[in-house]
Amino acid sequence: MSAQSGRLWETGAALDELVHRFTVGDDPTWDGHLVHWDCLGSAAHARTLARAELLSQAELDALLAGLADIDRRARAGDFAIPEALEDCHTAIEAALTKRCGQAGAKIHAGRSRNDQVATAMRLFMRHHALRWLDLLDAFVAAVTGRIRCDGHIAMPGYTHLRPAMPSRVGQWLHAIAEAGLEQMRAACDLLERLDACPLGTGAGFGVPLPLDRAHSAELLGFSRVQRSALDVQNSRGRLEKYFVRAAVDVAAVLEKMSCDLILFTAAEFGFFGLPEAMTTGSSIMPQKKNPDVLELLRGRSARLRARLFELEWVTGKLPSSYHRDLQLTKEPTIRIALELPELLEVATRVAAGFTINAERLAAAMGPELYATHAALELVQRGVPFREAYRRVAEEIKAGRFDDGAAERWRRSTERFDPAILAALEDERAAWRRETKRYRVRTAAAEAELLPGNH
Amino acid sequence: MSAQSGRLWETGAALDELVHRFTVGDDPTWDGHLVHWDCLGSAAHARTLARAELLSQAELDALLAGLADIDRRARAGDFAIPEALEDCHTAIEAALTKRCGQAGAKIHAGRSRNDQVATAMRLFMRHHALRWLDLLDAFVAAVTGRIRCDGHIAMPGYTHLRPAMPSRVGQWLHAIAEAGLEQMRAACDLLERLDACPLGTGAGFGVPLPLDRAHSAELLGFSRVQRSALDVQNSRGRLEKYFVRAAVDVAAVLEKMSCDLILFTAAEFGFFGLPEAMTTGSSIMPQKKNPDVLELLRGRSARLRARLFELEWVTGKLPSSYHRDLQLTKEPTIRIALELPELLEVATRVAAGFTINAERLAAAMGPELYATHAALELVQRGVPFREAYRRVAEEIKAGRFDDGAAERWRRSTERFDPAILAALEDERAAWRRETKRYRVRTAAAEAELLPGNH
Amino acid sequence: MSAQSGRLWETGAALDELVHRFTVGDDPTWDGHLVHWDCLGSAAHARTLARAELLSQAELDALLAGLADIDRRARAGDFAIPEALEDCHTAIEAALTKRCGQAGAKIHAGRSRNDQVATAMRLFMRHHALRWLDLLDAFVAAVTGRIRCDGHIAMPGYTHLRPAMPSRVGQWLHAIAEAGLEQMRAACDLLERLDACPLGTGAGFGVPLPLDRAHSAELLGFSRVQRSALDVQNSRGRLEKYFVRAAVDVAAVLEKMSCDLILFTAAEFGFFGLPEAMTTGSSIMPQKKNPDVLELLRGRSARLRARLFELEWVTGKLPSSYHRDLQLTKEPTIRIALELPELLEVATRVAAGFTINAERLAAAMGPELYATHAALELVQRGVPFREAYRRVAEEIKAGRFDDGAAERWRRSTERFDPAILAALEDERAAWRRETKRYRVRTAAAEAELLPGNH
Amino acid sequence: MSAQSGRLWETGAALDELVHRFTVGDDPTWDGHLVHWDCLGSAAHARTLARAELLSQAELDALLAGLADIDRRARAGDFAIPEALEDCHTAIEAALTKRCGQAGAKIHAGRSRNDQVATAMRLFMRHHALRWLDLLDAFVAAVTGRIRCDGHIAMPGYTHLRPAMPSRVGQWLHAIAEAGLEQMRAACDLLERLDACPLGTGAGFGVPLPLDRAHSAELLGFSRVQRSALDVQNSRGRLEKYFVRAAVDVAAVLEKMSCDLILFTAAEFGFFGLPEAMTTGSSIMPQKKNPDVLELLRGRSARLRARLFELEWVTGKLPSSYHRDLQLTKEPTIRIALELPELLEVATRVAAGFTINAERLAAAMGPELYATHAALELVQRGVPFREAYRRVAEEIKAGRFDDGAAERWRRSTERFDPAILAALEDERAAWRRETKRYRVRTAAAEAELLPGNH
Repeated sequence: MSAQSGRLWETGAALDELVHRFTVGDDPTWDGHLVHWDCLGSAAHARTLARAELLSQAELDALLAGLADIDRRARAGDFAIPEALEDCHTAIEAALTKRCGQAGAKIHAGRSRNDQVATAMRLFMRHHALRWLDLLDAFVAAVTGRIRCDGHIAMPGYTHLRPAMPSRVGQWLHAIAEAGLEQMRAACDLLERLDACPLGTGAGFGVPLPLDRAHSAELLGFSRVQRSALDVQNSRGRLEKYFVRAAVDVAAVLEKMSCDLILFTAAEFGFFGLPEAMTTGSSIMPQKKNPDVLELLRGRSARLRARLFELEWVTGKLPSSYHRDLQLTKEPTIRIALELPELLEVATRVAAGFTINAERLAAAMGPELYATHAALELVQRGVPFREAYRRVAEEIKAGRFDDGAAERWRRSTERFDPAILAALEDERAAWRRETKRYRVRTAAAEAELLPGNH
Repeated sequence: MSAQSGRLWETGAALDELVHRFTVGDDPTWDGHLVHWDCLGSAAHARTLARAELLSQAELDALLAGLADIDRRARAGDFAIPEALEDCHTAIEAALTKRCGQAGAKIHAGRSRNDQVATAMRLFMRHHALRWLDLLDAFVAAVTGRIRCDGHIAMPGYTHLRPAMPSRVGQWLHAIAEAGLEQMRAACDLLERLDACPLGTGAGFGVPLPLDRAHSAELLGFSRVQRSALDVQNSRGRLEKYFVRAAVDVAAVLEKMSCDLILFTAAEFGFFGLPEAMTTGSSIMPQKKNPDVLELLRGRSARLRARLFELEWVTGKLPSSYHRDLQLTKEPTIRIALELPELLEVATRVAAGFTINAERLAAAMGPELYATHAALELVQRGVPFREAYRRVAEEIKAGRFDDGAAERWRRSTERFDPAILAALEDERAAWRRETKRYRVRTAAAEAELLPGNH
Repeated sequence: MSAQSGRLWETGAALDELVHRFTVGDDPTWDGHLVHWDCLGSAAHARTLARAELLSQAELDALLAGLADIDRRARAGDFAIPEALEDCHTAIEAALTKRCGQAGAKIHAGRSRNDQVATAMRLFMRHHALRWLDLLDAFVAAVTGRIRCDGHIAMPGYTHLRPAMPSRVGQWLHAIAEAGLEQMRAACDLLERLDACPLGTGAGFGVPLPLDRAHSAELLGFSRVQRSALDVQNSRGRLEKYFVRAAVDVAAVLEKMSCDLILFTAAEFGFFGLPEAMTTGSSIMPQKKNPDVLELLRGRSARLRARLFELEWVTGKLPSSYHRDLQLTKEPTIRIALELPELLEVATRVAAGFTINAERLAAAMGPELYATHAALELVQRGVPFREAYRRVAEEIKAGRFDDGAAERWRRSTERFDPAILAALEDERAAWRRETKRYRVRTAAAEAELLPGNH
Repeated sequence: MSAQSGRLWETGAALDELVHRFTVGDDPTWDGHLVHWDCLGSAAHARTLARAELLSQAELDALLAGLADIDRRARAGDFAIPEALEDCHTAIEAALTKRCGQAGAKIHAGRSRNDQVATAMRLFMRHHALRWLDLLDAFVAAVTGRIRCDGHIAMPGYTHLRPAMPSRVGQWLHAIAEAGLEQMRAACDLLERLDACPLGTGAGFGVPLPLDRAHSAELLGFSRVQRSALDVQNSRGRLEKYFVRAAVDVAAVLEKMSCDLILFTAAEFGFFGLPEAMTTGSSIMPQKKNPDVLELLRGRSARLRARLFELEWVTGKLPSSYHRDLQLTKEPTIRIALELPELLEVATRVAAGFTINAERLAAAMGPELYATHAALELVQRGVPFREAYRRVAEEIKAGRFDDGAAERWRRSTERFDPAILAALEDERAAWRRETKRYRVRTAAAEAELLPGNH
């Protein structure tokens, strides 16, 4: 009996308990993160039902109050999803029915769990993409801040992990900042792809009720409706993949910074240091101060790729439409939404806090770093480059290479270009501005649909 | 000896031949696809050198004529890259030096192979992204064409691969078209990310010559300069990853269509057929007509993901700056540029050519497909949805479910919505328009830098 | 202060709390699964210390009693790992020190967390590999049981998902059974690779104390010592990879069975069915009976590959020796150890429970399935195969193909070969026997080191 | 027409040329590596046909001579596979039919391309696994040789890339040797899994002819028959996966060695060097000597994982039996068979050739490396370890730590343990012995089936 089980469906037979537990899986756990978004989606759906006169005003009011209450309870940690109820969608409908009676029994008209889940996930992803943008913004700001303070300090430039040409701390940091800005751009692209409302497409074949999908979309702050009902189901996992990739790409920036810092803080390089409060020790070797924080930034950034792979495997090679496999897209998406902020916060702390050992850096600026400069000085005096290259190579080999070029480099380029700093700040502000419309619409949806909860 | 080896570098020692062959690897093969783009990049660099008075007008003219000649020869299959010369960049410089003497020896001033490769790859990717867009456009057009002709034919909608609700051939195709359009949007995002010129950043630490990077960028049709020299190297593989992902996502659309068609053309479904000219036989079973083309579309689309994985593994966990590992980003990028067009062309042929078995489709429209419609008709008469759901479930169980809803569905929705067809065409045109500026700039660069070759 | 923090190391500075939480991560959660194995490893280490006269008999007795008590508490859910203590190893040493005083402070002599974790993980993996073997054995037994009952029922054989040749239910199941047996073989290979004791290698550079590593190995039931101390650290993740691959390969067998059953239970095929107790319904479509259990077997089997990928990314491209990244090898290993049994149990239930629709199967045995038989009958009468193939193809095309071969096939092969059934049973028994020595040694270690707890 | 097309099948319709080219793909290229193995498999099949009196002795003799001739031509580069003929199997049958007439038309009786390909691939993989073992053996021998010469030289041991404890060059190399030996063990496991003959299973449903499969197996040097005909098809890709994994694991050993050497040869460490003949230069920086060989060993080892991923994607989530996707398992398998030897040969050259900078190593043996030794000396005098750890930590902090332990370490452990060297040699010999039976059987098969060609 549905009355007994509380599930949204009923085949009429007792369910094999092992099979039931298996099909439910971890959904109740992960769905804890979706309650708020399902309340929002449900409130929009209820309003669209009322507009189509499929709910009375009183029923609508009761449902909206009920959803706001569930949302409040969930935020207070007071709304559990029992395993018997499978997922948050069922638990919310059950709670509504308990509270509002017949109105609760009406709310699922014109929707399926299929479009309901898609709606909740899309709202969830929009929210978290905006949150990433804030944290990424803070990270880029921290890096830019370090450029402003320490950008001028000379530092060897490496290729193949071998000293190559003279560079500066600011040039190293600049590359990190640019990579961060590129991910801000990418997050904006992501937000645009997420900006289509799936609600009202039912199980993937539309709904034979006169529901105004554009109204639902507007209420939820989407700028367009996702036209194809079947594509809503086909995009389960596809949009999640864009979301996860955006996180993976942000993490790759942190991974590279960590790889650099693990080397540059090693005793053998000694360019940078970690404050003691960021190092850890050994259980056996009393002298150790280990950069675990950097190694875990590297390792955890690297492993995020596995979430992407998980999504690919869960969704790949499936025919069109909904298959239960798609339920497995929730976990990697939700996990990554929770993990990336941790990585960004720690990386920002590291970027702001690493120390600089000016003496070791100065000592590392050996004469051979300037070989290319010497060759290009010859070029400026008319020597063809290949000839200049050969002459310098011979001087080095014969031990006759002098450091005039080094002296001239030091005199010529003393600070990090303020125009670039300004450009970085401008671009950062531009991406922030670009996302404002999503923030405004999201806030408006929350205020309108779950009033009093924010 | 450099004189003997022709390589762009020389450590002065005889190179271990096993090691040399290993370091060269397949570069000469893959670089065959880059000659044109390196000629273009080299022409822009030469003009910027001349503008800085590091080349005379006569030298510039000689170099430009030489590059145009190399480009023509490469197109005619008449420009080989000898293993001894490692890569196309070396082979081109060697050919220029042979032809133009001292001017050839001057062209490498102010650049490194590092920014040179990055430039060639970016031009290569821009070109191929535009080509994909054309083929994707044709694919979406073929799908839309089928919707126009056959969109009205009724077809069961499936979830969990079980008959779910009534649908139409057009609704199935519509989902494919939408997924295709989304990838056109994605290709536009990709073009924007590729739209930054790396030329003039040298080995990753800039170049101490007064070169006008903005001029180079404009000549090559880029709308901006990639500011950070180090980020140019750090973006090796990063931009390639965006490129490969765009292809993987297009292929995922084809994969899903193939998975559907493999089922729907199976005897047990029998909804669709493949023209005999698209089937293949068995070496042992005389009666077989196999859908190899669909299976290979599925398998080859699926395996494209391995190229992405290859890029991730080659570039992941590397510190900043250039490492030789990055050379291995060429193969997956070039391969995917060549493979995706094949997949798109074949998929377009399939989408245009599959046949429809109207009788089998009609026979498959069993009454249970309309259960949800029946329940929602009750909802429209005021029955709460949960109650309506239960009533219909009981009717079905008791064998009392009648097909009134079926009859009403058939009467109500006879054709595929022409407004949606129009919207699909509009969006397709919009993405084409969006890319026009890249096409114009690319064509202008070709005409300006390698005149007479196009 | 270590006294305050309880950590096994102390750099002397207050630790940044954000960084601390980040470095601890989920270790306390995952380590809950390792307490038992660390107690076992610690008991062996204590005995080896005592043998080297680095612990008195009284100290040893106190430690062994303490470890047995911790083990009992952990099994009763009564041994928590506080976040402040980072991991189970620290929590266990802290608990021992609290209980046994100075003896507790002595137990870490001659070991590092590095070899301690490796030991615990190896014991954990050995245990779970043996558990998998039991469940795999039960799965193969269920499949073999179905062959015995239903193996004779005729069923079309498919290639390219197109009817190919006559087959039997037993032949389909036989392939599954063989794949299962192959994984039993693979589990035996895995056990052999795990059969080397890492204890006593310290942080990766040995321990300057006269500890008898062979004694530790014997106590723990390993047949050999892992010789190289550094390789113990380098094998973190490497051995886990073998373990995870073994699970992934088992799951691939279940994945394939699920893919088959999703098709064969579809209405359009209709060969098999799922008992109602294994089907689930739809929230919107009253008539649906969905094979969620099969789809989740497919999806969850497929996604296990992501754990492997996670391990590869965490451990790949690392230099020799311990890096904190390696801590991230725990999660995928432990998760997969817990997940595979669920999959195996459910798959066994499905294999034993699916129903067979003999009428649909019989109806599906169309005459064209016998084309190859007809051709090979001609071959037996002396016609060259290529000629026979052509003749039959022409008969089919002309509608002249008769079903004599069908009739003869039906008469000739009425049951599944009992010799093969016997061979399957024999091989299953052989692999069970092959693992007996590991079971015996493991049980002996438990009885000896944590007496009274089993 | 088959007569015209030469294909082994014929649906009777003209084939769409785009589709045909697409379905053939690169098969002719990759199949070039399979001709020899298909000749071997075909010779065995012919002999088994003759034994069943389906070929006369004269026909058999003609076929065997024809196969030996094709094999010789292929080895001489004189046997092309035209695109029209799709694959090597068709080309070989066509060549036989051209040469032997009716005997050629008879050879395909009782087999399908499905079991034929499986047989050729299995022979191919067995051959290459044995070849890897030889090269791996040589690599381990080179490493062991370096231990013998240089094993005694002191070197810091690192954890977290921070100096940890005193170690020796030999201990670093020992870990590499052990990892190599483990892969020799793994290759033996692989050979055992490959040791089952698929020939005679047809398209996956057996063959209704009285063919003696055990005879075919014996002729080809397999110790058992693969019992289930359907499992032969299901194991396409599964066995290839084992093969590719074995290669990936060998490469991971080389990857780790390369990661170490990139660091240890960096100027900042300076422990080791590369002979100049193994370094490469820069196109712009005249002073550079780059370790491209090490970076490519790292990058190419890392990317091998993509081949595994390719196999997983091509074969994952497929139902039982043959699907054309499986054809795509050839490329990654064959590529990896060709790539791994290159990597092993270069790595062996590097392992034998890197130079040691004894002064830099000696200078790096700083006093703090001995902190653990100092603590454990206290332990041996009865101080509990935790107390000893704290005392030493305080001495270090206070600058009072003396290097008595260092002196004692230097005196106590002067050379690499010869017993371990002997154990390494013994184990290496053991794995070689273990493979002898496969070598003997393979050689016997070649001599028997293609006499005169070896």
